[in-house]
Amino acid sequence: MLIVMNHNAGKKQIEAIIKAVERMGFSAAPIPGSERTAIGVLGNKGYVDDTTVLALPGVKEVIHVSKPYKLVSRDFHPKNTIVKVAGIEIGAGKRPVIMAGPCAVESEAQILKTARSVKAAGADMLRAGAFKPRTGPHSFQGMREEGLKLLALASRDSGLPFVTEVMSPDTVGMVADYADVLQVGARNMQNFELLRELGKIKKPVLLKRGMSATIEEFLAAAEYILAEGNSAVILCERGIRTFETATRNTLDLAVIPLIKELSHLPIIVDPSHATGRRNLVPPMAKAALVAGADGLMLEVHPDPEKALSDGPQSLTLPGFEKLMKELDRLVTFLDS
Amino acid sequence: MLIVMNHNAGKKQIEAIIKAVERMGFSAAPIPGSERTAIGVLGNKGYVDDTTVLALPGVKEVIHVSKPYKLVSRDFHPKNTIVKVAGIEIGAGKRPVIMAGPCAVESEAQILKTARSVKAAGADMLRAGAFKPRTGPHSFQGMREEGLKLLALASRDSGLPFVTEVMSPDTVGMVADYADVLQVGARNMQNFELLRELGKIKKPVLLKRGMSATIEEFLAAAEYILAEGNSAVILCERGIRTFETATRNTLDLAVIPLIKELSHLPIIVDPSHATGRRNLVPPMAKAALVAGADGLMLEVHPDPEKALSDGPQSLTLPGFEKLMKELDRLVTFLDS
Amino acid sequence: MLIVMNHNAGKKQIEAIIKAVERMGFSAAPIPGSERTAIGVLGNKGYVDDTTVLALPGVKEVIHVSKPYKLVSRDFHPKNTIVKVAGIEIGAGKRPVIMAGPCAVESEAQILKTARSVKAAGADMLRAGAFKPRTGPHSFQGMREEGLKLLALASRDSGLPFVTEVMSPDTVGMVADYADVLQVGARNMQNFELLRELGKIKKPVLLKRGMSATIEEFLAAAEYILAEGNSAVILCERGIRTFETATRNTLDLAVIPLIKELSHLPIIVDPSHATGRRNLVPPMAKAALVAGADGLMLEVHPDPEKALSDGPQSLTLPGFEKLMKELDRLVTFLDS
Amino acid sequence: MLIVMNHNAGKKQIEAIIKAVERMGFSAAPIPGSERTAIGVLGNKGYVDDTTVLALPGVKEVIHVSKPYKLVSRDFHPKNTIVKVAGIEIGAGKRPVIMAGPCAVESEAQILKTARSVKAAGADMLRAGAFKPRTGPHSFQGMREEGLKLLALASRDSGLPFVTEVMSPDTVGMVADYADVLQVGARNMQNFELLRELGKIKKPVLLKRGMSATIEEFLAAAEYILAEGNSAVILCERGIRTFETATRNTLDLAVIPLIKELSHLPIIVDPSHATGRRNLVPPMAKAALVAGADGLMLEVHPDPEKALSDGPQSLTLPGFEKLMKELDRLVTFLDS
Repeated sequence: MLIVMNHNAGKKQIEAIIKAVERMGFSAAPIPGSERTAIGVLGNKGYVDDTTVLALPGVKEVIHVSKPYKLVSRDFHPKNTIVKVAGIEIGAGKRPVIMAGPCAVESEAQILKTARSVKAAGADMLRAGAFKPRTGPHSFQGMREEGLKLLALASRDSGLPFVTEVMSPDTVGMVADYADVLQVGARNMQNFELLRELGKIKKPVLLKRGMSATIEEFLAAAEYILAEGNSAVILCERGIRTFETATRNTLDLAVIPLIKELSHLPIIVDPSHATGRRNLVPPMAKAALVAGADGLMLEVHPDPEKALSDGPQSLTLPGFEKLMKELDRLVTFLDS
Repeated sequence: MLIVMNHNAGKKQIEAIIKAVERMGFSAAPIPGSERTAIGVLGNKGYVDDTTVLALPGVKEVIHVSKPYKLVSRDFHPKNTIVKVAGIEIGAGKRPVIMAGPCAVESEAQILKTARSVKAAGADMLRAGAFKPRTGPHSFQGMREEGLKLLALASRDSGLPFVTEVMSPDTVGMVADYADVLQVGARNMQNFELLRELGKIKKPVLLKRGMSATIEEFLAAAEYILAEGNSAVILCERGIRTFETATRNTLDLAVIPLIKELSHLPIIVDPSHATGRRNLVPPMAKAALVAGADGLMLEVHPDPEKALSDGPQSLTLPGFEKLMKELDRLVTFLDS
Repeated sequence: MLIVMNHNAGKKQIEAIIKAVERMGFSAAPIPGSERTAIGVLGNKGYVDDTTVLALPGVKEVIHVSKPYKLVSRDFHPKNTIVKVAGIEIGAGKRPVIMAGPCAVESEAQILKTARSVKAAGADMLRAGAFKPRTGPHSFQGMREEGLKLLALASRDSGLPFVTEVMSPDTVGMVADYADVLQVGARNMQNFELLRELGKIKKPVLLKRGMSATIEEFLAAAEYILAEGNSAVILCERGIRTFETATRNTLDLAVIPLIKELSHLPIIVDPSHATGRRNLVPPMAKAALVAGADGLMLEVHPDPEKALSDGPQSLTLPGFEKLMKELDRLVTFLDS
Repeated sequence: MLIVMNHNAGKKQIEAIIKAVERMGFSAAPIPGSERTAIGVLGNKGYVDDTTVLALPGVKEVIHVSKPYKLVSRDFHPKNTIVKVAGIEIGAGKRPVIMAGPCAVESEAQILKTARSVKAAGADMLRAGAFKPRTGPHSFQGMREEGLKLLALASRDSGLPFVTEVMSPDTVGMVADYADVLQVGARNMQNFELLRELGKIKKPVLLKRGMSATIEEFLAAAEYILAEGNSAVILCERGIRTFETATRNTLDLAVIPLIKELSHLPIIVDPSHATGRRNLVPPMAKAALVAGADGLMLEVHPDPEKALSDGPQSLTLPGFEKLMKELDRLVTFLDS
């Protein structure tokens, strides 16, 4: 931590800071400059809450060198984490995993048909929402437990493990009874009570980046899950909110190699929600793999024109089959 | 709803759209233009899910004219909602309400002292967090139920009703047992399970705008609460996330008159979280009232240098007293 | 400047950094921490280009303590700058100045009528564009020199000095021949050749904040003008670009007290471009003055329904008269 | 264009709108809905200025169906534009072009060495700045005409054509005398006087996307150049400004397939400025090609540690050679 003093901070104020830092159990090293003095804080073993110091007279700003996460950091855990789901391994060095399925479970016929079809096309996992977060209360909110049952049925039928969203701490147990992987949606990335509950279960968690979450906040959210004892966390970039409205969100692919530098956790990409436009999904799916993503989450619907949500970003079944062939070829190339 | 067709969409595609709209129970009015055809959708009584249409061949985009909220809209409820809290009235035309207190309850002495002091300075309500959402799990997370008890004690002692944050659906009952107003934090604005639960209680809810929530999403989040039967909702602007990092957030004051146009709900402003800097709080507090805010939420700490969170944005007690005098003078001027 | 080393940076890398800093003419103070070492750079008299250092092995990041501006900084020039325009004084402690007029000069009748009317209502200066930056080339681009002549005529007729935009270095001389104050539009805030040219003239410059300019970049842009010798610069906040589309831009009023802390230059607010909606202009105009703005720039059109640009955000003449009375009352209150 | 009326707009207001539209030379088709009436505007041959209409009583909003550009639009020019530079063809279907070189020309030795090296590694064009836009006036501003002469020398010596930035209309002629392609930097994307001047020359223009420019504004800026007669425009995505500060900008790769849908112009990507971090450049360069980019602009410096600007994002010569081999392999794969 570096404490930057005001231009006109006097000797007395600087001494007060040094004492305050020492009271916090650290040592302080003043660095006089020509414009202002800065004070280095030494001996901290992690992120220090800066509020005590910031409130002292003469302090201009406090600059953090340590980060608000540690367990997820590669600094302290250099080896890649590999998350295992029903025999599938997800993480650096493993073949990218493809999770595919409709935005929402809508009926037995729909989910069974999609599961069989995406399995046939080569998908590794099934995805679909039983609990759906929607902007307004008057939109379709998902089939809830009934949807979980249909997902479990489709999973048994197709042999694909499945991932589905959980929206509140009190339904974690119920969702964990059915799902192979529990997903935290972007709107809940900082629903800390939910994260804590997910840290207590034995199943992997797929954590989506919040719409306006910095990489630091994203990793700190994962830290909540690891801090409770569950280290099987898969990160998922799904686009961030920017001023640009031509795409649903702005897909931030540079996050892939950057997070691989900062953390040992696997990271996958959801190009369907990121772009919101079916025809942008294939190029962004391929770009994500080339950027180093450990997997993809893709929306596929047997009949997108009749989807109850997110139809325009869903691939058709033939579109998905075509993309899977291209991805397969690309992965083979990347591995060669 | 307006459906915009591609430049080269043919007659057949346009007819398919018209039929699809009719199957949805609406009627369709084609508007041929020189560049492309658009199709107006008539007869809808609210927001229509556009996914079916968007997926049809030849459709370029769908433009919504209706909004994803209705109960919160002034169109359908022209009269201002006045929320009542222990004899205090909050809403348009009423004297602005001042909610003040520390970011977090830290001890009995701290909260009792602050409550008495802000009461003496003229505050209408006490605010403090017992459940604290923090970016990382290694920061202070609040005193939880113990904090609620101390808040209730301070409330009885000072005579001030209090508002405090609730972070999960399963603690709504517990928080409602103590608090006069339940607050939804910015990170939980789209925690829909929490919103639904709050719609079922009989106490007022203070809903903070999400960091990257549009006005439409903000109002749609409030709609979740009203849709369950609770119309005592107070909106709160607390700054949005932008590229600017010199302030903690960017306070969006234009939202005040704009939301008053669109909705009948009261809206207050939190300049402490919006700016993150103590010296910016007084000018922004005054600007908020002039812009038409129905109240303010202010962080005040008896000893900001020792606050466990958000010290640098907290006013000192003398600073709060001074500001209250200035606000009082300003409110008198605005009323005159 | 603080150089933060990687977690695993060794002694040799740290020594290489120290030598590099010394070669730059500064001295280096290593600050060993428990997680990583940081190196303070001492003796710099301002902003240091960090690129040499950032490229060295073992460096994680470089944190700047000094800023890329100096002449505009209050640190080095504590006294408020007062800009004088034809007898009007603009700056802290002076009565806020009101600049009013249409977005663009459209005809002799339009500009004469508006000038007389805004003068009668109490405006201090006339504003209108002769050179208009427009998103696409097929929109009205302004009357150019003909517009400057009409502005000069309206200025003489009404007795109001005027401010107008200049869009390129080669027209600075021409615009300066007519105008009392030369405006740099938001799109040109980092048109450095234009800024340099404006630094060489003897007339005041009104510099609008860029749509996505940080406060630091805004002040650094003003530094370009001061660095060439012209210190009569008026800053203007006009809203920034964010994800919110309900208003044209997001008005960032916290910038007013913050810039007054950081700089000695006057700063005014343009609520018309910031909000893009006529009915939001009066509340935001008042909020700006309460936040400490040294003036306002307001769009007024005798017949907004027929304006060639920006009609929906222009006040009508009766609307402007009403607002001027309210502002006058507010300024009297604030001064009392 | 669709005009949306207020909820309570009456028959008289609607009739007034219809008349206003007819006065503008178009016809109007009212679309009554259950909540409000909308009015379709028919017969316009392009983007209509909406200000007249927006100011009329009863109008809630105006929705544009047409765009502020036409010449750059694929709707009206379906065939891909191929820009030719000294025998190199740039555009869809052609081999991606690699432009490489230092951020700035610093000396004869530096630019000659870099040019020879990037040529040897397989680059198609040389890039370097002689005029440098820098945030503050106290940073290195480029060697200006002397730099152009050195670039011309390095170009002749290596046989590589070169692209370099032009910052003001009055230097367009000078830069065009030396350069093969003239670059407009992100800060000048809406410097319309500069764009117009570039529309009058016979050399290709490389137009970088502004930091906060929407795709619509980006294409409308290119329209300025085409409108003056120069259709040899290469677009360049270089990252946009968002709340995320871990990377210099946020690279928006979805823009590549999207712009290829909307426009016939070639588009390349600059991963160096987009990410600001050397180690993110190779993965993003590859992702850009997979997403369909027609080329790359890469910063390469023989000695990044001594670069006068942008060292940390520059590739070393061995790093560039390695990347070129990987790109070559990738392009061969993509073509197969």
